[in-house]
Formats: sequence, structure tokens, C-alpha cells
Amino acid sequence: MKLPTTPPRGMRDVLPDEVDLRDRTLATILDVYRRRGFVRIETPAVESLALLTRGEGGENEKLIFKILKRGERLEASRGTEEVADLGLRFDLTVPLARYYAHNHARLPQPLKAIQIGPVWRAERPQHGRFRQFTQCDIDILGVRSEVAEIELILATADALSAIGLEDLTVRINDRRLLTSLVRHCGFEEARFESVFIALDKLDKIEAAGVVKELVEEGHAGPAISALMALLETSTTTSSTPERLAQSLGDSLDPVASRALTRIIDTVTEAAAGRFRVMFDPTLVRGMSYYTGPIFEIRHQDAASSIAGGGRYDRMIGKLLGHDVPATGFSIGFERVINILTERGSAGVARRAKTALVFDEDTVHLAAVLAMARDLWDDGRVVMLELKAKRFGKQLQDLESQGVGRVVVFDADGHPRDADLAPRPERERSV
Amino acid sequence: MKLPTTPPRGMRDVLPDEVDLRDRTLATILDVYRRRGFVRIETPAVESLALLTRGEGGENEKLIFKILKRGERLEASRGTEEVADLGLRFDLTVPLARYYAHNHARLPQPLKAIQIGPVWRAERPQHGRFRQFTQCDIDILGVRSEVAEIELILATADALSAIGLEDLTVRINDRRLLTSLVRHCGFEEARFESVFIALDKLDKIEAAGVVKELVEEGHAGPAISALMALLETSTTTSSTPERLAQSLGDSLDPVASRALTRIIDTVTEAAAGRFRVMFDPTLVRGMSYYTGPIFEIRHQDAASSIAGGGRYDRMIGKLLGHDVPATGFSIGFERVINILTERGSAGVARRAKTALVFDEDTVHLAAVLAMARDLWDDGRVVMLELKAKRFGKQLQDLESQGVGRVVVFDADGHPRDADLAPRPERERSV
Repeated sequence: MKLPTTPPRGMRDVLPDEVDLRDRTLATILDVYRRRGFVRIETPAVESLALLTRGEGGENEKLIFKILKRGERLEASRGTEEVADLGLRFDLTVPLARYYAHNHARLPQPLKAIQIGPVWRAERPQHGRFRQFTQCDIDILGVRSEVAEIELILATADALSAIGLEDLTVRINDRRLLTSLVRHCGFEEARFESVFIALDKLDKIEAAGVVKELVEEGHAGPAISALMALLETSTTTSSTPERLAQSLGDSLDPVASRALTRIIDTVTEAAAGRFRVMFDPTLVRGMSYYTGPIFEIRHQDAASSIAGGGRYDRMIGKLLGHDVPATGFSIGFERVINILTERGSAGVARRAKTALVFDEDTVHLAAVLAMARDLWDDGRVVMLELKAKRFGKQLQDLESQGVGRVVVFDADGHPRDADLAPRPERERSV
Repeated sequence: MKLPTTPPRGMRDVLPDEVDLRDRTLATILDVYRRRGFVRIETPAVESLALLTRGEGGENEKLIFKILKRGERLEASRGTEEVADLGLRFDLTVPLARYYAHNHARLPQPLKAIQIGPVWRAERPQHGRFRQFTQCDIDILGVRSEVAEIELILATADALSAIGLEDLTVRINDRRLLTSLVRHCGFEEARFESVFIALDKLDKIEAAGVVKELVEEGHAGPAISALMALLETSTTTSSTPERLAQSLGDSLDPVASRALTRIIDTVTEAAAGRFRVMFDPTLVRGMSYYTGPIFEIRHQDAASSIAGGGRYDRMIGKLLGHDVPATGFSIGFERVINILTERGSAGVARRAKTALVFDEDTVHLAAVLAMARDLWDDGRVVMLELKAKRFGKQLQDLESQGVGRVVVFDADGHPRDADLAPRPERERSV
């Protein structure tokens, strides 16, 4: 029986050119982070369902790929609902919290961690979104000061610049400020989360859409009006936490306001015009675990953010027994690769390759290998290629793979350089 | 409720120092392969169970982590046995065959592929063996000549040498020769696989153990005696395929014998004494999909092989409709890392780090960031560190993280180098 050879629904094969781009991009990002003293850690792709379904992951918890129990354990649970005990991770933050709780005694304090790896979400497949995708996170665990946020934002902006993304805008807000703002407007205390969810869609559905959703959700009309009025005055490029604080009067958390101002001012100064920094009081970030400053980075070529993060001071405590201050910033690696692919990977040049082409029946292989070794020792990329029947076609194929020199061994075992077809550009310039 | 924070059974967290070693080792291996024109490809971690359970994977098929169907599909299958439709891959070869069958029109011909990634097997956990582990494979698809085997063996031996593993022995055999040998001895044609399984254990249980297992399996006494006699004369370092051919007379496949001799001779000449090469007529390699030459590499510090592979000319045809010659070589990455860890990672040196230590209440952060940026631009690794209450302890911690220079900002914002504790070696040398 011939099986279908497509990857599983919503998943994808990556062709060599894209893997090459991905590897070079990751290497550049990693270098920026490592030069700031961040260290890479790794957790298993699989975690217990008990850990993954504790409510930290929000909507993502509904999208978990669940793994069937094995052997006797499965037999014992047949007929019940509990046939699964493990799941593929849906992000790198929940596993990081478990990792830190389990290993903290053997980790540097504070821990500045890099995590790069695949995560899985069983979302409805749609264009450009896949069920397995790569995340690239940095987190600082053990620093209560907003110095941690400043370091994360600068490192992430530097990493994105280093891979060639210009025209970046960093948007910054604070969950506590958002809470004060919603409280000030008079929304029901128990239903703030529903207000955040609507507000989070502001970019996509605009103010009118947000109002519609808030009305449908049954929020009070005066609260909705107050919120929209406040946002109108505060979502200008000249808005600051202080001005918003004035509008809110007493209800704004003063600690949050001071920290936020310091983050915005310091990052703006350090950016020195290389990227834009703005206070965005409408910024929500989806995850429910955030407790303080939140931030994201946008790029002109992407409709949504290409990096996002924030402070989550209470997540680790739930596993460790005492709170550990924590803040993280995650690059949406697939979006970044999409941008780089669409613009044509003008980035780092690939090394030119040499191909040694020979007919194995007439040439002593040792001579070919000896020449290859000399070139390898010299740092070159060298491919061994059996001579094809259609040699002209083979030359074209080699050139399309980035081969810039072709050495052909003749019947006496002597190497000579083949004439490569002149490139169209050259022909035009003659 | 406090959850257990251990990783799932049989899986593990990797601490920063080991991730660093793993990354540096992989980068070195990748560089060797890329300089030979191999290109990296990627497949999803997840494949359909239909693909994974077609009999190519042998015992590994019993060890698959199976993934529950999602949503409506799960509801529809409740009460039946078929609640799972996907599985985590147990190796990189079965996914490669699917990848090639699906994408061959867009791939270079021949394809020289690198695959690096985790695979999962629900084995009984035991010391040093984990349920998620990394494999590092190269495969050549589309080359029928044994030039492909020669290239794979030399590239893999070079990669292992490049990461500092000396004292390597390459063992080479051929599945067809093994079949001829077993047929010559008079075993039942239908039960060759059972003879291979016993013979595969020769290293672990020695000749007497193999005889015992063959007897228990009910094989004929004269066949067992003939096999052991043949092996005794042929498992010497001076044995060659030709000598074995003489003992077997007509029953040896002449094509296999010639190809094997050429592989052994060419690799031996190219090795030029850097590693040992030997013909091992007892070599079996576990997988049932091998069709021709098989090979492995051993290192003096490892009880079993650290790399293994062979030719599997009929696997892709089952998916594509026509056969594609294929051969591959896989490095047991975890075993390699174990060897490097046990000897102390004397390998590549880590870059020395500079720490900038400051008290955030007295120092203007911008001055610290400006100094850091100068050092980063200079290629240094620079860590920002808030001054701890126990500064002496902090200095020690930083040194243990590889920090070689500590700059402390005083209350006036002036940086000065801190005296680091003299190292024990230095004290002794004074």
C-alpha cells in the first residue's frame, strides 16, 4: 500500500535553503544573547499534562497534543477518560518555571536563560501558521528590579537588528496600569479579564470593534465610554505613564508608574534612534500569567508583533513554594523567518562551493579524495559528485546549488576546471 | 497544590554547561558535514502512526509515544482502540524517506542530507539512556555506487575526530554477505532474521552465549557449528571479504564482495592511520531495512558503537513507487556527549566574560549600558549584574560562571576593576 507522504496536518517539511536561513538567523540571535551572558538551557519537548493544564497557558491549554499512556498504565485506564498523561509543550515559559523549580540549586543566580526550540499547538491550520513552530526566548529569573526588563528589551532589539530587521518599534505597558485603568473606568472587578481580551484586539478590529465586543459581553455602557475616552487621549505618540496617571488620579499604582517610566526612558536613551520606543496603554499581551511590565516589538513588514514578553512574578512560586521574580521576552521566530524569506535572504552570504566531478570507473577515487582533503583543510566547501550522463544538466544543477568551481577528472585521472556557463549578468555586461 | 517538578519519567533537563558543550560539539560536526556539501533538512517531530508502524522500525515500533486524536476526531473514535493517529518519531530515517518521497522534485539530486534532532522511544528508563535523545545523521539519497558509503564513512570519522575523539575503529560488513554466510551454514531460509538477532549480541554475550541462544531458538546443530567455525577463522584483524568468499565458495554474492573490498581499501587508504578500519563479518546492525553495506564506529571509551549506518535501497520505493538508492550514517550523539563529559570538556574554550556590577539606586544605568555597548561592539561577553548584599559571595559566583573581569561602579558612577581572588594554581606557583 502506498501511503500519503504529506507531513501531518498543519505541520511542514523544511527545505535545505530555508533550514540554512533559519540556522544562520538563530546563530546570529544566539551570539547577541550569549555576549550578554545569557546561557542556553533545554527541557524535554514533553511535559506532564498535570503541569501543562494548570491554567497558566490560557487558551493554549485547549490546544495541547496529548500523549497516550504506555503499556500497563494504558491498559489500566482503558474505558476511562484518562488515557493520556503527557503532552507536547505549547510554550517555553511553563517548562522554564518547572525547570527552575527543579534545578535552581544548580543554576547561576540570577538565571539569564536562553531557550530555543519547537512548541506544538493543535490550532486550526491556516496560511502561515503551523502546528509545530519554533520559539526563541530569553528570561531573567531572580531579579525584581526593572533593570531586568531593560536588559531583555535591549538584548531582543539588538538581536532583531543583528539579523537585519530595521524599523523596529518597542511598545511598553504594565499589567498593573491596565488594571488601574479598567478599574478607574468602573468595570466590574471580577470581569477585567474579559475587558483585556476585547482590548487586545484593538489593532485588528479598531475602536468600534472593541466597543461592539464589550457591549456584547454585557459590560456597562458608562464604563465602556470612559475607557474609550481615556484611550483616545492616551494613545498618542506623546503619551506617557505620568500623563495617564494624572487622568487616573489616585487609582494608578505608583510603583508601576515609576518603573514603567524608568524602563521607557532608559531604553529610549540606549536605543539612540536605532529603534522607536513608545508607551502603549492599550497593550495587553494575551497570557494571563503576567504581573507587571509587558512589551512587544513590531516591524513595519509584519501585521502583528514579532516579539513579546513581560513580567510573571507569581508563576514559579506555585511550583517552588516561594515566589521568584521573573520576566521574559520571546521572539516569534517563524514570523521573523517569514519577513526574511519574503525580502529574499539578502543576509549572510553562503560560502562558495567547489564540486569535484569524476567517473568512478576510470578514476582512482583516492586521487579525488586527496584533492578534496587539501581543499577541506584549506577551509573550502567541497562536494564529491559522480559524473552524470547529462553533464551539461549536471553543471547547471551544481551551479543552482551554489557551486562556483567545478573540477572534472578526465579518464587519465587528471583534474581540470570546467567552464561554467557565463551568468546572464556577465553576458549583459560584456 | 504543589506539583512534582521532575521532568517526565525517563526524560531530562539539560543544565547550561552541558547545553554549551552540546552546542559546541554539534557546531563542529555540522561544519565538517557542511564543508562536504551536505545540507541540513528538517521534518516535524510528529508523524502519522500509519507511517511509523509499517515494519521498518523493528523493535522501535513498540516504543512509540502515541498522540491522541483531537476534538471531533477523538469523540468519533471513543470506545474503539483507535484513539491515537500520530506518534513522536523514533528515528530520523523513516521521516527522511517520507520527506524525500514528498519533496524530491524540489531537492538537489543526489540529496546529501544532514538531520539533527530529538527522537523519542518509550524504553524502560535505565542509567544513561533516556526517552528523548538527539540523533545526528547524514544520508546520501540517489547514489547506487559504493562511493556514497566511502563518503559517509570518511565524513563521519572526520566529524568524530574534529570533536576530539581519537582511537576510532570503523567496522564494515554487508547484509548480503551476512545472508550468504548464514545460508552457506545451512540455516533455514525463513529464519535468517533470528540468526542475525543472536549474532548481533556477540560482543555482549560472546560466542558461547550466541550458541546458547541459537540452540534455544531451535536452530539445527550442524548449522550452528558451521557458523561458529567460519566466524572463528574470519574474525581476525587480517580477515578480508575475499578470504571469507573463498570459505563460502559460490554462495557469496560477488557484487557485494567487490563493493565491500573497495570500501574497505579506499577508506583505509584515505584514513592514512588516523583511524582503524576493519572488516567484521559478525557485524549485524539492528534495523531490518538494511540491504547492503553496513558499518559502525567504535571508540575505546565506549562499550558499544558511537555511530552506525548502512544502505537501505528499498525503503523509499515503498513510499515513492520506485526505488531510490539510499545509505546513511548516524552519530549516537548522547554517547558522544557522555564520553566528552566524562573526560572533562577539554574541548573548545569558552570566551572569558566581563561582569559590570552596579547598585541601581546610586548609579545612572545609562552609563553602565554605554560601557557595556562599547565592550559588546568589541566582541566581548558582558554581563550586567546588580550588586548583591554579599559582594564577596557574588564575586565567587561570577568567577564560577567563567567571569574573568569584574568592573564595579562606585557611588559616584565611576567604574573600577575589582580584585578577583587569586586562583589556587596561582597561589601555588608564587
